Amino acid sequence: MKLLRYGSPGEEKPGLLDSEGNIRDLSNHVDDIAGDVLLPDSLARLKALDAASLPRVEGNPRIGACVAGTGKFICIGLNYSDHAAETGATVPPEPIIFMKATSAIVGPNDAIEIPRDSIKTDWEVELGVVIGKTAKYVSEADAMDHVAGYCVINDVSERAFQAERQGQWTKGKSADTFGPTGPWLVTTDEIADPQSLPMWLEVNGHRYQNGSTVTMVYGVRYLVSYLSQFMSLQPGDIISTGTPPGVGLGQKPPVYLKPGDVVTLGIEGLGQQRQSVVQG
Amino acid sequence: MKLLRYGSPGEEKPGLLDSEGNIRDLSNHVDDIAGDVLLPDSLARLKALDAASLPRVEGNPRIGACVAGTGKFICIGLNYSDHAAETGATVPPEPIIFMKATSAIVGPNDAIEIPRDSIKTDWEVELGVVIGKTAKYVSEADAMDHVAGYCVINDVSERAFQAERQGQWTKGKSADTFGPTGPWLVTTDEIADPQSLPMWLEVNGHRYQNGSTVTMVYGVRYLVSYLSQFMSLQPGDIISTGTPPGVGLGQKPPVYLKPGDVVTLGIEGLGQQRQSVVQG
Repeated sequence: MKLLRYGSPGEEKPGLLDSEGNIRDLSNHVDDIAGDVLLPDSLARLKALDAASLPRVEGNPRIGACVAGTGKFICIGLNYSDHAAETGATVPPEPIIFMKATSAIVGPNDAIEIPRDSIKTDWEVELGVVIGKTAKYVSEADAMDHVAGYCVINDVSERAFQAERQGQWTKGKSADTFGPTGPWLVTTDEIADPQSLPMWLEVNGHRYQNGSTVTMVYGVRYLVSYLSQFMSLQPGDIISTGTPPGVGLGQKPPVYLKPGDVVTLGIEGLGQQRQSVVQG
Repeated sequence: MKLLRYGSPGEEKPGLLDSEGNIRDLSNHVDDIAGDVLLPDSLARLKALDAASLPRVEGNPRIGACVAGTGKFICIGLNYSDHAAETGATVPPEPIIFMKATSAIVGPNDAIEIPRDSIKTDWEVELGVVIGKTAKYVSEADAMDHVAGYCVINDVSERAFQAERQGQWTKGKSADTFGPTGPWLVTTDEIADPQSLPMWLEVNGHRYQNGSTVTMVYGVRYLVSYLSQFMSLQPGDIISTGTPPGVGLGQKPPVYLKPGDVVTLGIEGLGQQRQSVVQG
């Protein structure tokens, strides 16, 4: 099942994508794609609906972030061995956690705003994991019971803010529009193996990232269990699991986004994003 | 004006503290102490109410965190020169930002849970700043227009998780119960100068922290402006502005919390907190 949110920013309605690629309205069944709607029983009820009987949404509405009410936007650093290498870092002996501001979350095709005084705005295609049930001290064996599904995330990053303006990466990860999320929340039943998903990112049609979650160091199951030892996870929380090689910082010489650029990215089975870059 | 939230966890009602120390119920006027209720016009309307005419709350209800709907819980690291020294660090040339999980927020007198496998759970009394109006690229001159008020925060910290388990402090700052917040949100009109507030913290009656916001390196006005260059701030967001000397890590030898300990802390004009320490 592919869940989504469509409409103007802040006024999105819940929907699902039917097998023919049409948006079907879920407003009569749920208020939003958020919180308790993500619980396993709730997702099972939505899956049991006959999509053809739901109102079909006409036209091409804006697509919002595929999940609302996100309390935590947790990111994993240096979680692909080859990306660690390109940034001059080594693979950490356990996951590196940092937070992105939830106010950075936008729709998958909304513009990326380059922050004022930024000269190093960069991209990162990532597999997003959306929590479906509260997780606290969960084992690896039980971890997947707490996952509602997956989505595409662009973990937009300002490298100077992140690394040259005094510690803690959150400073370079949290600007408004730095978290395009979606287009769809794809439930776990549709993804046979989250650790074998091809993923890619292009800027102005040039392919910079061309990877797969198969080279992820710490996998989804491990990450959910690991994180739940340090903080509880709630429905709607997002874990962005790190990026494969090919970020702008890793080019020789480095390449960063500028107004007018167009970023496209996608992950197999999870859909695609397209962002125009503007000056904030 | 001292705003607060009282009642069982997750079912708190809005209230205010009258001049005689009674809780008065605000349920007929606002849904919660959150979001748009914190806007300047809304606070002015609440301030204009005759407190004596509001229903008086009987008994001694639990006090919840003084603000709800917090989207971001932003902390400033090493923001007191003498605290930086006790941890072996130097004062940073610009503020260090890290995030605490919003799921860590609890009431001021709720128990602190020592996380499983923790051996270095520590305390930090801090001045909390609650945002009242969206702030993005605001100047220092305008910064205070975006502040609703102040509160006491205990930035509970697990030092091994923070510093010995791979980078990014958020890992040691985010456990459930690690963010006691309140008792009151004290509006800015009651605090003549946020940079001259005595603050203290005791464990089992022994005074470990005895400082004042006068030794804060980067003040409230500067921090609101500074943060707003890196991310937008929304009503209900909290900035915890750093701690003065006397944390457990700074003792010789270090002292950490254990089950059965009682932590009390306070800031002049903002009230006090009291937490029992339990094993999580």
